[in-house]
Amino acid sequence: MTGNVASSDLLMRVQQRIGQDLAKVEEVFAAELASSNPFATDVLAHVCRFRGKRLRPILVLLTARCLGGIRPEHHVLAAVVEMIHMATLVHDDVLDEAATRRHVATVNARWNNETSVLFGDCLFTHAFHLASSLPTTEACRMIGWSTNRVCEGELTQVRERGNFDLDEAAYFEIIEGKTAELCALSCRLGARYAEAEAATVEEMAEFGRLLGLAFQIADDLLDLTGDEHAAGKSLGSDLSLEKMTLPLIRLMSEASSDEAARIRQLLAAPDEASRQALRTLLEEGDAFAYTRDRALALVSQSCELLDRLPPSPDRQLLQDMARFAVERTH
Amino acid sequence: MTGNVASSDLLMRVQQRIGQDLAKVEEVFAAELASSNPFATDVLAHVCRFRGKRLRPILVLLTARCLGGIRPEHHVLAAVVEMIHMATLVHDDVLDEAATRRHVATVNARWNNETSVLFGDCLFTHAFHLASSLPTTEACRMIGWSTNRVCEGELTQVRERGNFDLDEAAYFEIIEGKTAELCALSCRLGARYAEAEAATVEEMAEFGRLLGLAFQIADDLLDLTGDEHAAGKSLGSDLSLEKMTLPLIRLMSEASSDEAARIRQLLAAPDEASRQALRTLLEEGDAFAYTRDRALALVSQSCELLDRLPPSPDRQLLQDMARFAVERTH
Repeated sequence: MTGNVASSDLLMRVQQRIGQDLAKVEEVFAAELASSNPFATDVLAHVCRFRGKRLRPILVLLTARCLGGIRPEHHVLAAVVEMIHMATLVHDDVLDEAATRRHVATVNARWNNETSVLFGDCLFTHAFHLASSLPTTEACRMIGWSTNRVCEGELTQVRERGNFDLDEAAYFEIIEGKTAELCALSCRLGARYAEAEAATVEEMAEFGRLLGLAFQIADDLLDLTGDEHAAGKSLGSDLSLEKMTLPLIRLMSEASSDEAARIRQLLAAPDEASRQALRTLLEEGDAFAYTRDRALALVSQSCELLDRLPPSPDRQLLQDMARFAVERTH
Repeated sequence: MTGNVASSDLLMRVQQRIGQDLAKVEEVFAAELASSNPFATDVLAHVCRFRGKRLRPILVLLTARCLGGIRPEHHVLAAVVEMIHMATLVHDDVLDEAATRRHVATVNARWNNETSVLFGDCLFTHAFHLASSLPTTEACRMIGWSTNRVCEGELTQVRERGNFDLDEAAYFEIIEGKTAELCALSCRLGARYAEAEAATVEEMAEFGRLLGLAFQIADDLLDLTGDEHAAGKSLGSDLSLEKMTLPLIRLMSEASSDEAARIRQLLAAPDEASRQALRTLLEEGDAFAYTRDRALALVSQSCELLDRLPPSPDRQLLQDMARFAVERTH
């Protein structure tokens, strides 16, 4: 992963703090999938080349450290959430018909859509199999409930494609499911398995939820403003897939009815000229600034929640992760 | 479902025997998915129109009755295996680009591939969520393990597409995973949750496995010989997808090297003329008879296993289900 100075510094501090635990998570992850057939192993090796920041395992582990310390269950749970996240990425690439992710060909581009669908399924089933290795069904129930919400959020997003009148409430409902829920789950599991009190578990889940919302809004912003080379993935795909994201929703909501009609036309015909015209409109108005402010406000809210915990380097890292979610340039 | 006289008679007897329990399974199934978003509910209502024989729930329930009786856990488990089966069907229709199943447009034809992928994911996650409502992780572990094998079998099948030299051993490895495993799981869960002894649980799983193999072989045979109207789904898709099934493997193994080269050409160019030529070759040789005999032998083996149980109408129904697996005409 290439990165700006701030992000590489943060990730180095994370590595120093929980590097050994992240390595154990990797071991659990690899051991669960080692039983797979040789083709699944090949696809996995390929997919691992585009693994990202491991945000979700980091959330599990740092939350645990803030609230009593990391236990073996946390390594298992961190591997489970990462596996589920990877499953959704592999399936997303089918949905978005994406050709590259983090500079590497996606599974559907390297093999085919069938392989993406089935390999994603394998990751889902292995994640649940791994979760069931814990002594009780509690984690399975929490994971099952959250993954239901993740899939339903994604399903709503697909249904709403091409609906240029999507409003903020509907947008937030989608990203609550598709992104915030898995971040909330990561923190919830981290806290619960550190044996935190019920109220603290829910506060940490809320922290994860707010961070996840901010992260997704920043991602949607980068899809319109980012540098494709630095991001290492195809950008502008939201426009070509007719997905309404917060900057576009803001643009529409601030437009006169004549302007809105013109914007709808541009959204419906996403050739390069229309895209350029849309970008100009977005830059001239307050859409980007508004979106950034919304993300920053969510980050502030999430950091305030953590202020209730005793100060520690782990708490600091969690707050820095939240800020990083919106300050990153890719 | 339209059916021949034998199958409608069998299903009527099943209905008389466990109709009330099947209705409870339906209730559990619907309640689990009722929490879903409205779009998921629409897609589900559509998918339910092509629900089939409910073979797997029937296996769970009849196995339970043979070994101590149906308990509330069996209704939950039967709904779980049916949900997993439905998830694999919805994803299969993406893979096969099938347009109809049981006379109804598939999800990908009615909506799009994205919806199929995500709705299939929803069914998987809800199945695991439902399984985690049982008191211990035992069922989750068994279900996780089996679904891993199902997905890996399907993945191997995709990898082997276009490999016209696939041998019987590789074919059986594929169908062990993609079909036999879920039938084995159904019987294993039925027996385990009736508190049968460990050896009996494994014998029942073996019965399910053999029945599943026979069922898949019969299905592959019907794809080449069946009547598209009676089947209510697109047939001949194995040929157009370059999937080698038992009749084709037998044809290749009995051919001289010259004939095999000619068959490979026909398989690689599956236009209507090539398909017709292949069907003629299959009919002239022993490929269909050989395949039918293999399926019948598996059914006999499976029925013999059940002879160890005390005779009962439930045991009889299970044996009749096994015979029906190969005798059905669609």
